[in-house]
Amino acid sequence: MATFESLMDLLELERIEDDLFRGASPDTDVQRVFGGQVLGQALSAATATVEPDRSVHSLHGYFLLPGDPAAPIVYEVDRSRTGRSFSTRRVVARQHGRNIFVMSASYQIPEPGLDHADPRPDAPDPESLPAIPPSPADDGEDALWNILYRRWTAFDIRRVPDTGPERRQVWLRTSAALPDDPHLHTAVLAYVSDLTLLSTTLIRHKLLPHKEVQIASLDHAIWFHRPARADEWLLYDQASPSASGARGLATGRLFTREGTLVATVVQEGLLRVNPAP
Amino acid sequence: MATFESLMDLLELERIEDDLFRGASPDTDVQRVFGGQVLGQALSAATATVEPDRSVHSLHGYFLLPGDPAAPIVYEVDRSRTGRSFSTRRVVARQHGRNIFVMSASYQIPEPGLDHADPRPDAPDPESLPAIPPSPADDGEDALWNILYRRWTAFDIRRVPDTGPERRQVWLRTSAALPDDPHLHTAVLAYVSDLTLLSTTLIRHKLLPHKEVQIASLDHAIWFHRPARADEWLLYDQASPSASGARGLATGRLFTREGTLVATVVQEGLLRVNPAP
Repeated sequence: MATFESLMDLLELERIEDDLFRGASPDTDVQRVFGGQVLGQALSAATATVEPDRSVHSLHGYFLLPGDPAAPIVYEVDRSRTGRSFSTRRVVARQHGRNIFVMSASYQIPEPGLDHADPRPDAPDPESLPAIPPSPADDGEDALWNILYRRWTAFDIRRVPDTGPERRQVWLRTSAALPDDPHLHTAVLAYVSDLTLLSTTLIRHKLLPHKEVQIASLDHAIWFHRPARADEWLLYDQASPSASGARGLATGRLFTREGTLVATVVQEGLLRVNPAP
Repeated sequence: MATFESLMDLLELERIEDDLFRGASPDTDVQRVFGGQVLGQALSAATATVEPDRSVHSLHGYFLLPGDPAAPIVYEVDRSRTGRSFSTRRVVARQHGRNIFVMSASYQIPEPGLDHADPRPDAPDPESLPAIPPSPADDGEDALWNILYRRWTAFDIRRVPDTGPERRQVWLRTSAALPDDPHLHTAVLAYVSDLTLLSTTLIRHKLLPHKEVQIASLDHAIWFHRPARADEWLLYDQASPSASGARGLATGRLFTREGTLVATVVQEGLLRVNPAP
């Protein structure tokens, strides 16, 4: 569950000491903390220790243990390196004395250079797609999307229909305007990049996450190519190149409506098929 | 420069203490240590601390400083987590009292599960391609490939011609048979995955690495989907989805000759165009 207000609260960390922060967990009935929350909070913690003229261009994280939604999460930042053009930070997220998540992120001073990008795939306009999927008569995939829409009201999400068994596309943006702070937009993108990605690994198998397959994020990497606003429509184009050994890989690309490639996301997750009931 | 013998020496680390290893640097005239060497050695160090029934399925590394080829590299391993199914390790590579590279890697006990994979793109058979490119009359791209072939005799590399401005494909394998140890094959794949990848970012710009553009690896991530031998032909299918802000992203996929997707690689690098002479 993340309303727009709770999302803003989540990404606003309490500073305990230099390089030590505490993030709230939302009032929720879920069994484990949403991975995107840990990602977004860890990124906010790292960014708070970096010179404000530098922006994150990549992050790599590993989920070690499920987060406990009943307890706050403490984020400790190590200032791995501060160079002339680049700064690298490492963040360890802890609960109950144990590391639940580790992340490294790299920041860079703005610098001009070569420019190219893959084009945005065609997709129908977000306004042409329903804001809420039809109320489910069964407990199939529509039911899962309904849960997602009801739980994550912080976002306006429009599922692109008929993208075939190879990919998934959604339009997304926050459900209200964000302040202009570009670091906040990046943290929100990190948060939401975890929302629909991993279950993309199940599309080819026509299996439902949680109900039919236990899924859990193992890692998460994002490359931020260009600045973007999280409160304007972004197309999240997702696919799964491989699944094997009870793991699945998912890749995502975020494009602006105008077609600019904003970020590349790669995530691997654990996929354990539940025994037949 | 890496002959087959020197490659084997490089990936055989000296154990200094529990979780502390030293890797040699090859006798070479290069200005900085090849990133793939640091990757392969860091992976060997991590693997030496993991239960032998577990195999690496992913790694994420950041290059912090150029490595000094005149000095050995010390690798310190932190046993971040040892769970029932997964083990996570963190490796810090040091030279002259400074961290030059940090990496996390995750290992898993073999476990069956869902299976799918993107198909291998078509490519001519490796035997139909020349082992050494024609001796260059100019100092263009052929000259660079000649240098690569002469320096990295540990590998047999066959460049696939006419793949267009969007991608690069090479067949590769070690130039001699390897022992059967699967961990060694994985370390060799990590090593070689860094060899031709980053310059893929320059293809669309028709610019030459080093000569026209200063390039340096910033990070490197690999997902190992399925076991593979590094001494049998693998197709390395590489592309560059984006370049911006003096950085370029390159993606690679390793396929067996039979078409099995073995690994996915993503790397970002610094791209600084040299001033016109």
